Amino acid sequence: MRLSELSARGGVSVATVKYYLREGLLPPGTPVTARQSEYGEEHLRRLRLLRALLTVGGMTIQQVRDVLAVADDPAFGRHERVGVAAHMLGPQISPPDTSDPERPLWDEVFAEMRGLLTEMGWQVYDEAPALAALTRAVLTLRTLGYRGRTDDIRRYAEVMHPIAAEEYAVMEEYPALEEAIEAAVAYTVLYEPILLALRRLAHEDVSAHLHRLPPPPEPPLSSS
Amino acid sequence: MRLSELSARGGVSVATVKYYLREGLLPPGTPVTARQSEYGEEHLRRLRLLRALLTVGGMTIQQVRDVLAVADDPAFGRHERVGVAAHMLGPQISPPDTSDPERPLWDEVFAEMRGLLTEMGWQVYDEAPALAALTRAVLTLRTLGYRGRTDDIRRYAEVMHPIAAEEYAVMEEYPALEEAIEAAVAYTVLYEPILLALRRLAHEDVSAHLHRLPPPPEPPLSSS
Repeated sequence: MRLSELSARGGVSVATVKYYLREGLLPPGTPVTARQSEYGEEHLRRLRLLRALLTVGGMTIQQVRDVLAVADDPAFGRHERVGVAAHMLGPQISPPDTSDPERPLWDEVFAEMRGLLTEMGWQVYDEAPALAALTRAVLTLRTLGYRGRTDDIRRYAEVMHPIAAEEYAVMEEYPALEEAIEAAVAYTVLYEPILLALRRLAHEDVSAHLHRLPPPPEPPLSSS
Repeated sequence: MRLSELSARGGVSVATVKYYLREGLLPPGTPVTARQSEYGEEHLRRLRLLRALLTVGGMTIQQVRDVLAVADDPAFGRHERVGVAAHMLGPQISPPDTSDPERPLWDEVFAEMRGLLTEMGWQVYDEAPALAALTRAVLTLRTLGYRGRTDDIRRYAEVMHPIAAEEYAVMEEYPALEEAIEAAVAYTVLYEPILLALRRLAHEDVSAHLHRLPPPPEPPLSSS
C-alpha cells in the first residue's frame, strides 16, 4: 500500500506517518519510484502500535523507543516484551527521598502491599509501577485518616483478579507480538474510565435502592 | 475547642480555617472574648467535609457551595443530599454539540448504555456524570477500533456492583449526614487509583503465570 492508504488504515495523518518515518519509529518502505514507497501489513501493525503507545498510552517518543527496543529483541520472552509497555504507562510514582520524613511510612506500606501480593501468590516485579501507585494510594488514604486496611485491599484484589484474567485472555488472542502489545496498552488504558464510571453508577444505584426511591412511574395507559 | 485545635484535628492549616470562615463555608464559632471563638464537633465535621470536597474531590469553591446548599436542605432526602456531592466529582464530560458530526454516534452509545443499566435494574439519573463518562469512554474505545460490546460492559458492571454495595455499606456506617457525604467523596476518589493499580498488577500476574515464569528461587540452605 502507499503512504496515503497506510495513513488512512492506521487512523493517523500523513504528516504523522512521515514524522514517525523520520524519527525511525516506523521502518522505511520499499522504494518503487524516486518519490514513492510501498508499505506492508507489518508497517500497519507498527503504526497502530505507535498510535496506541503515544496517543492512548500518553508515552513520550523516548519511552516508545525504550518499549520498541525490548519488544523487538527476541532475547526477551513474551512476558517481558508485552509487559515493558505496560510498565511504561503512567502514572509513574516514585518513593519519597530517603531523607523525606514520609519515607519510613512509605517503606512500611510498600512492604505490606508487597507482602499481601506475595501471600496471594501474585507474581509481580518489585519495580512494577502499579505497586508504587498502590503504595502511594494506600498511604494517602491512611494519612487522611480513612480506612484502608490490608484486608480491604485484599478484597479488591480478589475481585479484580478474575476480571484481569478474562481481559488478558482477550489480549492473548492476538498472535502477532505487536498486536498483543497494542491490545495490552489499549485495553488497559481505555477500560480504566469505564471501570471507574461503572463503580460510581453502581454506588448511585445502591444508594437509590437503600433509600427506597420509588422507581420511575410507568407512562399512564390513558390520560383521562 | 479553639481555632488552633480545630485546625489540628481537621488536618488543615489555621490560615485555611480562617479562609473557610471568611468565605462562609464554615459557620462562625461562639465568641468567648473579643478575639477568640469556641468551636464544636459540628465545626470539625464540616471542616473535614470541606477538606474532602476541596482537596480529595478537587472541587471549586462554587461547587462546594452548591453541594452544601443541597446537603443542608432538609427538603431533600438522604439519597440526594449525599448524591449531589458524588455528582459534582470530575471528570465532568459534556456530550458533543448537536452540530458536531460525532453527535449521532454519542446519542447512540448513550442510549445503549442507558438501556443496559435500565435492563440490569440500575436506578441512576440520566444526568449522572458517570453515565456521560461511560458513554465517552465506550465511544473512544470503538472509534479507535477496539472491542467494547454491550456484553463486555455488562460483564464489568456485574463485577463492580457487589463491590460498590460493600463500599456503600461502609459509607452508611456514618450516621451524621456530613460524615456520610465526606465518606462518599473520600472513598469514591481515594480507592480509584487502588482499583486501577490492582487491575494492572493482576494483569502482570496473569501474564507471568501464562508464560510460565519460574517463581523466584528460594534462598539456598547452604552456600557450599
